[in-house]
Amino acid sequence: MTERVSLSLTEVHDLASAVLRANGVAEDHSQTIADTVTAAERDGAVSHGLFRIPGYIKSVRSGKVVTDAVPVLSELAPSVLRVDAAHGFAPLALKVGREPLARHAREQGIAALAVMNCYHFAALWPEVEALAEQGLVAFAFTNSFSYVAPAGGTKPLYGTNPMAFAWPRVGKPPVVFDQASSASARGEIMLAQRDGHDIPEGWAIDRHGNPTTDPTEALAGAQLPFGGYKGAAIALMVELLAGALIGDVLSFEASERDNRDGGPPVGGEFMIAIDPARCVAGGDGGAVLAHAERLFERVLQQEGTRLPSDRRYRNRLRTPGEGITIPRALYDTLEGLRALDR
Amino acid sequence: MTERVSLSLTEVHDLASAVLRANGVAEDHSQTIADTVTAAERDGAVSHGLFRIPGYIKSVRSGKVVTDAVPVLSELAPSVLRVDAAHGFAPLALKVGREPLARHAREQGIAALAVMNCYHFAALWPEVEALAEQGLVAFAFTNSFSYVAPAGGTKPLYGTNPMAFAWPRVGKPPVVFDQASSASARGEIMLAQRDGHDIPEGWAIDRHGNPTTDPTEALAGAQLPFGGYKGAAIALMVELLAGALIGDVLSFEASERDNRDGGPPVGGEFMIAIDPARCVAGGDGGAVLAHAERLFERVLQQEGTRLPSDRRYRNRLRTPGEGITIPRALYDTLEGLRALDR
Repeated sequence: MTERVSLSLTEVHDLASAVLRANGVAEDHSQTIADTVTAAERDGAVSHGLFRIPGYIKSVRSGKVVTDAVPVLSELAPSVLRVDAAHGFAPLALKVGREPLARHAREQGIAALAVMNCYHFAALWPEVEALAEQGLVAFAFTNSFSYVAPAGGTKPLYGTNPMAFAWPRVGKPPVVFDQASSASARGEIMLAQRDGHDIPEGWAIDRHGNPTTDPTEALAGAQLPFGGYKGAAIALMVELLAGALIGDVLSFEASERDNRDGGPPVGGEFMIAIDPARCVAGGDGGAVLAHAERLFERVLQQEGTRLPSDRRYRNRLRTPGEGITIPRALYDTLEGLRALDR
Repeated sequence: MTERVSLSLTEVHDLASAVLRANGVAEDHSQTIADTVTAAERDGAVSHGLFRIPGYIKSVRSGKVVTDAVPVLSELAPSVLRVDAAHGFAPLALKVGREPLARHAREQGIAALAVMNCYHFAALWPEVEALAEQGLVAFAFTNSFSYVAPAGGTKPLYGTNPMAFAWPRVGKPPVVFDQASSASARGEIMLAQRDGHDIPEGWAIDRHGNPTTDPTEALAGAQLPFGGYKGAAIALMVELLAGALIGDVLSFEASERDNRDGGPPVGGEFMIAIDPARCVAGGDGGAVLAHAERLFERVLQQEGTRLPSDRRYRNRLRTPGEGITIPRALYDTLEGLRALDR
C-alpha cells in the first residue's frame, strides 16, 4: 500500500505556492496556480491537484514559460474580450479576464473571452463555476497536444479537447460539467501503464490503427474520441474554437513546437458567458433559474442519477475539515522542488 | 422492392408547398417549410425531407399549430435577439431572425438568438449553414419530447436534443455538424420497428431499465445518450439552453402538454453566432479561416476520414441535375393531402 501524507487545504496552498516561488514563479502567478491546485484537491479532483506541480516546474526550468508574464486585457468588439497571457501560465490570465467577461455578459447579454498565448495545465471547471457563481451561464473550451484521432482516422490530431459548461443555481453551487472529447483522460492511460493494467476497449488504437487495450501501444498510437463520430465532431469544434478562432495554435502545432519538457502546451482558451436575465422578456433571471430547478428535480427523482458536479461538491463539504492525503512520493518530490533554488 | 417516384428539386418544392397551402398553411410559412424540406432532399437528408410533410399536416389539422403566425423580432439586450414564433412552425421564425442575428454578430462580435413558441420539425444544419455562408461561426440547440434517460437513470426525460455547429470556409461550403445527443435518432428505431429489425446495443433500454435491442421495447422504454455520461451532459446542456434559458418549455413539459397528433413539439431554439474577424486583434478574419484550413487538411490527409458535412455536399452536387426519388407510398400520401381541402 502506498504511504500517504495528510495535509490541510491551507497546507496544500502553502506547499504549492512555496514550490512555485522557490522556482522563480512570480508571486501573483504562484498564488493563482496554488488557488487552482487547492480547489482541485478540495474537490477530490486529484489529477489537477498537487500532482500537476512537478509539470509546472518542468516548464519553468526548461525556460518554456514566462514566469512573470503580465496578462494584457483588451476589447476586440463590444462583446468580445481578449487576454494575451504573454506566454505565462493560464490561471492569472483567466483571473484577469473573469470580471470583465462577467460585466460584458451582463451588459451585452452574451460575451466571449479569448485567452491566448497561455500554458494551460488546469481543469476548466473552476473558470465556468466562478462565472456561474455570479449568476451567469458559462462555456469554456481548450485544446492541448495532438493525442486523439479524427473520425475514421488512425493518427493523433486533436487534443483531448475538453469543454466545460456551468449553469447557476440559487443557494446551491452551480451545475457544472468539464469533459474531455476523448474517451478517457490521457493521464488514465499513463496510470494504467505505470501500474501494469490494461485499458478498456474503445479508449485507443495502436500505431497501426488497430484497437488496443495495451496502454503502451495506446500511448504510441492514438486516443479515440468519446461516443464515436459525435465525440470527434465535438473535438473538432473545440479545436477550432480554442485554436483557429482566437488566432492561437491548433493542437498539432502545439505538439510540433513543444520542447517536450513534460509540462503544458502553449495555446488558447475560449469562453462564452450568458446572462439568463437578458435572455427572457422582462428580465426575470430568477424565473429562468427556478424553471431549471424543475429539470434538476426530475433528474434526481430517478434512482441512480446525480448531477454532473455532485461528486466534487460532496468532497468539498468534507475536505476543509478533514484535509486531504497525497502519496508520500509526491510529497517528497514537492519538498525536493521547494528546497532547490532554480 | 419499394416502388419509387422520381422528382426534380423544383417538383419537391412545388409538392411540399402545394400540400401545405392546400391544408391552410399561410403562403410565407408554406414557402419556408418547402425551402427546408427541399434543402433536405437536395442533400440526401431524407428523414427531414418530404417524409416530414405528413407530420406537419397532422399538426395543422389537429389545430395545434397557428398556420398564419406572424413571428415577432425583439432585442432583449445589445447582443441577444428574440423571435417569438407565436405558435407557428419554426422555419419562418428562423428566417425572420437570421439576418438580424448575423448583423448583431458582426457588430458585437458574438450574438445570440432565442426563438420561442415554435413548432420545430426540421434539421438544425440549414440554420447554422446559412450563417456560416455569411462568414460566421454558428451554434444551434433545440429540445423535443422526453425520449432520453439522464445519466444513471432509466426513464425518458431529455429530448433527443440536437446541437449543430458550423464553421465558414472560403470558396467551399461550411464545415457543419448537426447531431442528436441520443445514440440514435428516434426515427431509426421506428424504422427498425416497422421493418422488423433489431436495433444495436447501446441505443435504448426497456421500461424496466434493461438494455434492449427490440425496437418496440425501446420505444416504450428510453433512448440512451451517445457516449454515456458525456453525451448525457450534452443533452442536459441543450435542454437548459433551448428550454429554461430562453423561457421556453423543457422536453418533459412539451410531452405533458402535447396533443399527440404525431407532429412536432412546441418549444424553443437557441442560437449563437460569432464573427471570426472580431475574435482576433487586427480583425483579419481571413487569416482565421486560412488557419482552420490547415486543420481540415490534416484531417483529410488521414485515410478513411471526411469532414462532418461532406456526405450532404456530395449529394448536393448530384441532385440538382438528377433529381431525387421518394417511395410511391409517400408520394401517394402527399398527393392525397394536396387533393383534400382542409
